[in-house]
Amino acid sequence: MNPVVDFSIPEPTYQRLANVHRYWLATNYLGAAQLYLRDNFLLERPLKSTDIKPRLLGHWGTQPGLNLLYAHLNRLIQDTDASILLVTGPGHGAPAILANLYLEGTLGEYDPTYQVGLNGMSQLIRQFSWPYGLPSHLVPGTPGQIQEGGELGYCLSHAFGAALDNPDLIVACVVGDGEAETGPLAASWHSNKYLNPATSGAVLPILHANGYKLSGPTIYGRMSHEELTNLFTGYGYQVRIIGGSDPMQVHAAMWQAMNWAYGEIRTIQQNARAGLLMGVPAWPMLILQTPKGWTCPLTVDGQPIENTSHAHQLPVADPAGKPSQLATLESWLRSYRPQDLFDGMGQPFSSVTSNCPMGSRRIGMNAHANGGQLLVPLELPNYFDYAVKVPSPGTVSVEGTHQLAIYLRDVFCLNESAQNFRIVCPDETTSNRMTPLFQATQRAWMGPMVETDEFLSPDGQVMEILSEHTCEGWLEGYLLTGRHGLFGCYEAFIPLVDSMLNQYAKWLKVSKETSWRKPLASLNYLLTSHVWRQDHNGYTHQVPSFINSVVAKKSSVARVYLPPDANCLLAVTDHCLRSRDYINLIVASKACQAQWLSIDAARDHCSRGLSVWDWAGNAGDQQPDVVLACAGDVPTNETIAAAAILKERLPDLRVRVLNIVDLLTIMSPEDHPHGFPEAAFSQLFTTDRPVIFAFHGYPMLIHELLHHRTNPNRFHVRGYMEEGRTTTPFDMLVLNNMSRYQLVMAALQHTNNLPGTQALVQWCQDKLTQHAAYIRREGLDMPEVRS
Amino acid sequence: MNPVVDFSIPEPTYQRLANVHRYWLATNYLGAAQLYLRDNFLLERPLKSTDIKPRLLGHWGTQPGLNLLYAHLNRLIQDTDASILLVTGPGHGAPAILANLYLEGTLGEYDPTYQVGLNGMSQLIRQFSWPYGLPSHLVPGTPGQIQEGGELGYCLSHAFGAALDNPDLIVACVVGDGEAETGPLAASWHSNKYLNPATSGAVLPILHANGYKLSGPTIYGRMSHEELTNLFTGYGYQVRIIGGSDPMQVHAAMWQAMNWAYGEIRTIQQNARAGLLMGVPAWPMLILQTPKGWTCPLTVDGQPIENTSHAHQLPVADPAGKPSQLATLESWLRSYRPQDLFDGMGQPFSSVTSNCPMGSRRIGMNAHANGGQLLVPLELPNYFDYAVKVPSPGTVSVEGTHQLAIYLRDVFCLNESAQNFRIVCPDETTSNRMTPLFQATQRAWMGPMVETDEFLSPDGQVMEILSEHTCEGWLEGYLLTGRHGLFGCYEAFIPLVDSMLNQYAKWLKVSKETSWRKPLASLNYLLTSHVWRQDHNGYTHQVPSFINSVVAKKSSVARVYLPPDANCLLAVTDHCLRSRDYINLIVASKACQAQWLSIDAARDHCSRGLSVWDWAGNAGDQQPDVVLACAGDVPTNETIAAAAILKERLPDLRVRVLNIVDLLTIMSPEDHPHGFPEAAFSQLFTTDRPVIFAFHGYPMLIHELLHHRTNPNRFHVRGYMEEGRTTTPFDMLVLNNMSRYQLVMAALQHTNNLPGTQALVQWCQDKLTQHAAYIRREGLDMPEVRS
Repeated sequence: MNPVVDFSIPEPTYQRLANVHRYWLATNYLGAAQLYLRDNFLLERPLKSTDIKPRLLGHWGTQPGLNLLYAHLNRLIQDTDASILLVTGPGHGAPAILANLYLEGTLGEYDPTYQVGLNGMSQLIRQFSWPYGLPSHLVPGTPGQIQEGGELGYCLSHAFGAALDNPDLIVACVVGDGEAETGPLAASWHSNKYLNPATSGAVLPILHANGYKLSGPTIYGRMSHEELTNLFTGYGYQVRIIGGSDPMQVHAAMWQAMNWAYGEIRTIQQNARAGLLMGVPAWPMLILQTPKGWTCPLTVDGQPIENTSHAHQLPVADPAGKPSQLATLESWLRSYRPQDLFDGMGQPFSSVTSNCPMGSRRIGMNAHANGGQLLVPLELPNYFDYAVKVPSPGTVSVEGTHQLAIYLRDVFCLNESAQNFRIVCPDETTSNRMTPLFQATQRAWMGPMVETDEFLSPDGQVMEILSEHTCEGWLEGYLLTGRHGLFGCYEAFIPLVDSMLNQYAKWLKVSKETSWRKPLASLNYLLTSHVWRQDHNGYTHQVPSFINSVVAKKSSVARVYLPPDANCLLAVTDHCLRSRDYINLIVASKACQAQWLSIDAARDHCSRGLSVWDWAGNAGDQQPDVVLACAGDVPTNETIAAAAILKERLPDLRVRVLNIVDLLTIMSPEDHPHGFPEAAFSQLFTTDRPVIFAFHGYPMLIHELLHHRTNPNRFHVRGYMEEGRTTTPFDMLVLNNMSRYQLVMAALQHTNNLPGTQALVQWCQDKLTQHAAYIRREGLDMPEVRS
Repeated sequence: MNPVVDFSIPEPTYQRLANVHRYWLATNYLGAAQLYLRDNFLLERPLKSTDIKPRLLGHWGTQPGLNLLYAHLNRLIQDTDASILLVTGPGHGAPAILANLYLEGTLGEYDPTYQVGLNGMSQLIRQFSWPYGLPSHLVPGTPGQIQEGGELGYCLSHAFGAALDNPDLIVACVVGDGEAETGPLAASWHSNKYLNPATSGAVLPILHANGYKLSGPTIYGRMSHEELTNLFTGYGYQVRIIGGSDPMQVHAAMWQAMNWAYGEIRTIQQNARAGLLMGVPAWPMLILQTPKGWTCPLTVDGQPIENTSHAHQLPVADPAGKPSQLATLESWLRSYRPQDLFDGMGQPFSSVTSNCPMGSRRIGMNAHANGGQLLVPLELPNYFDYAVKVPSPGTVSVEGTHQLAIYLRDVFCLNESAQNFRIVCPDETTSNRMTPLFQATQRAWMGPMVETDEFLSPDGQVMEILSEHTCEGWLEGYLLTGRHGLFGCYEAFIPLVDSMLNQYAKWLKVSKETSWRKPLASLNYLLTSHVWRQDHNGYTHQVPSFINSVVAKKSSVARVYLPPDANCLLAVTDHCLRSRDYINLIVASKACQAQWLSIDAARDHCSRGLSVWDWAGNAGDQQPDVVLACAGDVPTNETIAAAAILKERLPDLRVRVLNIVDLLTIMSPEDHPHGFPEAAFSQLFTTDRPVIFAFHGYPMLIHELLHHRTNPNRFHVRGYMEEGRTTTPFDMLVLNNMSRYQLVMAALQHTNNLPGTQALVQWCQDKLTQHAAYIRREGLDMPEVRS
């Protein structure tokens, strides 16, 4: 590494340090006041129990540390004009962040209720944790935020996602020492191996080790300096520990540490952008060790509070009910000397805010935090150009994901200059037959390389780490800051991010209710290597439950697509990449499969979401005796085979085949905006005929989706019943009662006993018997059922 | 640390080293042969394409490393008589483990098909990845295993869970360098802070860094020795790196490393058991750096294979189809010189197995791997002794989880000598009002302590780490080795382990189908701080989806309980702790709530699972006009309040109140063993009356569960609709349409328009209007609806 470049950051002066301290006192005061006060906001008179809110809801413990970091980041921005996005892991420290946003004026610019002044300050304090006021956590309505942090573990991967392809941005990321214990967070430190300082911004991780989580000590709070240094040096960072309980000493050390970190970041970037960087740069990181709840009462009613877990929520638990606690609270609040910080009109004295940046450089104004306003739509190629030629249904077979990858390759090409599209994947891109991507880009990789390496480059836009959590976190951070992406994953292991999906869906819902949040590119999942084709792996790799997880989300955000062939996969993906503010789930096999629709037919089918495939049935315009419905590529293949058997062997039975590509069309329109109106639904499914429904996932889900439809008991759903092992593809269908023979038997069971029915049932049973013997003997499916 | 004690392990001799190598060659040969051969198992004639299996399914890359480790662990056991359980992260390396189990004879003892000899060897090779043969991954049917490893991330937490309270056990845990990238694995290295060497066994982590995952380099494979040493020293381990590609050099180094690690473990244990240990001991760990796919062809058809990701699955992809590849495969297989390893009858020469342990010391025979056979039932106190006195319904209020904690405290006391019960929890025990536990035990903690610490001890049986993944992994490992436990968790964040639940449920299902696996204590979840009482936290903390996840599991393992009060919570928990092989989910608020049932009534109600609460309605023995059903403590409270309003204000309406404590009783008996027979169900719910169903979770789930019941459209379900924020408890109900007033209006909407209906609807609407104004003004619920 070259010597540190002089970026001409001023040395701290006593006056500026003192003003940073005053700012810190002001934010601490405002943060504590938010927890407690419904009146007497400036303590202009003695505190009375009626000044206390009736319900005390909120957290103190992390606030002084957050305030300290915010103050010093402000000062750094003032001195460097850096663009800094703050990602706050401890989102329940909201009163701290709100206090800073209030003081810098951004809160009041987003909502005039909170303009700086006596009224705004009163509102800030009173509305915190008040019904329909300011929520107790950071939320989409909070300026400058890209995550709430309610569920812990994702701040650092969000931060790295935000920094990718934003070369001028520094993302300061505060990691609580509780959050640091989580798995997703522990994995995400390795994100440094994927971020190219030449083309991306920087992340400054700050481990906020105040020693306690909710009720016990933290691991990171009790590790020695040597252990901490070893650990994070091993992760590849340069570590600086700043700690203590004397505020002025900590301020001085933090000032220097911020300068140091900033200098290191700029040096790394300068070297990288000059082509001088080799390998993973040793980015700076800070560890802030200050007491939990710093500056709150040391004890309350004899119990230790400051620097214990009892400072996590409310240091003073019942000031309205206990006079001694009221006095303790008053002296705590007065310890910040609010009269020295604010004038009688609630305006902070100028010395308090003298180190704050102005205008768009204020942290609450960072444009990247409202990514939708920076969103540049993707240039998309015409997907018709990537169509598979299908002269007639079932005559050609291709690997759908391979075909899609050629299209996606060109998405990378067309948007190369914008650098606003990434694919994340837990090391499965080649397994998923998507190697054509690597004609346009590579896998991101900053680490050492060897001669035999394939498709690795610091500039790669495909991000592969064997951590679904990190993939999801990166992508979320990337989308939240106004870019586009796709998560390619084995279907079985995407439930690892079920809980991240929960949280992202919540963020999205509330964002859509927040007027100033602009729409984001959708969160797109492509699940392949799915439940029906786990030949190599067996039972653990058979989990179609993510469909259920997405369906459980608000209907305003949840979309599920089960394209039956490659042309439909192209049409659906094109649609998803153009959409905004959705969670789009696409499930498609990577296996070589029969193709059904021309690209024109695929476009029409996908835009309807659900249609009759006349060529597959024999009912024509007549009322069918039975409807064979299917959703998913493998179920579609079996359904078409079942229909063919029925047409050939029981031609008097009128069969209608229906394919569902947009799963939620089967819901009632009251339940989902894509739901078919009842009349249209009845025309397709009839109102009284049996429907044999072959579904990609768990059968119960279909019952759930159909529960408002007419006569729901006539739907007989087949799907994955948690029966599986290492066996042949067709045997998987047999095990789960969804093979063509079993579908035929189901259709016959629920229709009138036409002549020939008995014989056909026997024929199917014979086929199943032959199959069982054949696979045990030959280790392969019978030729007639091979896919 | 004291000087290393001499445990008198013999130094390696050339002959023994050579035999370890021969054993390694034999297992490598058997492992490779399993991937390819359907005949010619000893290569007694030239290899022909017809000797090759028709479908090649399996993985080679990790096998040589696993074989090497197994060989050296065998030798160590032989020299020390240690009890070693092997936890294999890379479970897709099954052919390697199967080869070792075969050679040591355990595979044949569990299944005579695989007895050592020509026939057994032929079967081993042929049946691998053959339909209904040996699955391609480690499965419950594989001797000596406690995890499959299909989904990666949990081997180390499983290993620590197995070692807890098993002082004589050493758990060797192989962590693949792919798996090491996952979040759950990264967090679980910190388990060393929780394991007391005085009373628990040891874990020997072995990072198997072969450099590549499925298709790219691993992070850990490209970190420098210095980075690796720093990182794991920072985690608190003593690190020894063993690497190379010359087998004899690696053997020699590994022999020494095993001796070193064993000596360190015994020294730590000796010191700890003599009372000489302070703090977290620096346990040894090994890092094995050998080439991916070591000993396979360096190139195939010109493409590099060994030491690249192409060695991950099949180094030779198409030997049956390409003569050149057939030759390559043959020379690869012959490179192990099978004729020097096995006689013509397939018996290994004695030198091959001379370093293997015998009898119950063989790894495949370790009793802890079949935990059910070691299971000692818990001594349980009589839960009647912990009953809340309920003179009549609704007259007393308690915190249910506090009451339960007193019972659980005594479970700890009664089983203190057995040391076979643990509670895991992500730092929420005190928040969940379960502090009484700490009268009997403490939180496990080996780290430094300070004066203000509460409830910490190296001997604690409550395990608190802010990682739901690690909690779950520990508990699974503990249960799988024959002990008992409970996972206490905030409801909102238990979905973090959705995917672990998927995998554990799969393991349990297959275990129950495996004759020699004995029943395990159930996996018990207690979810509290639930969706309806997130006053402090708001929307991110409102996620009742885990019920859906459990319900989606096989009905043979899934059980869901929603106790409406403390006495029911006691009855349900007592039942769960006595049960075997289930996944029991209990959801119960920690808040102070009205109590409904005496302990006798609670016992009866819980044993039925579902009953009419006559006292809450007014229908008596008459057919009701409307049924108010409820499942969950908060919905029960609202339903009883709604019924009271109806009884008072519209007494002519006949109301029946039904409470469901065992949720799956509402399923059809075809769908779940607890499902009420249709006749009994109809008697309770009628066949035609409207049912207003207030549910703890997502309403759609109830529709799914009821879909086989008569006239399902008459069920009108209220529950959590993803509407929430920081607000009052009653407002949460209003937001989600489940307040008492909304339940009353729903009942009126679906019943005949009795005189007074209109007025009552208006009264309810007025109440809602008053409520909205009141909470905004006062910040509190109106007194009449406060809970």
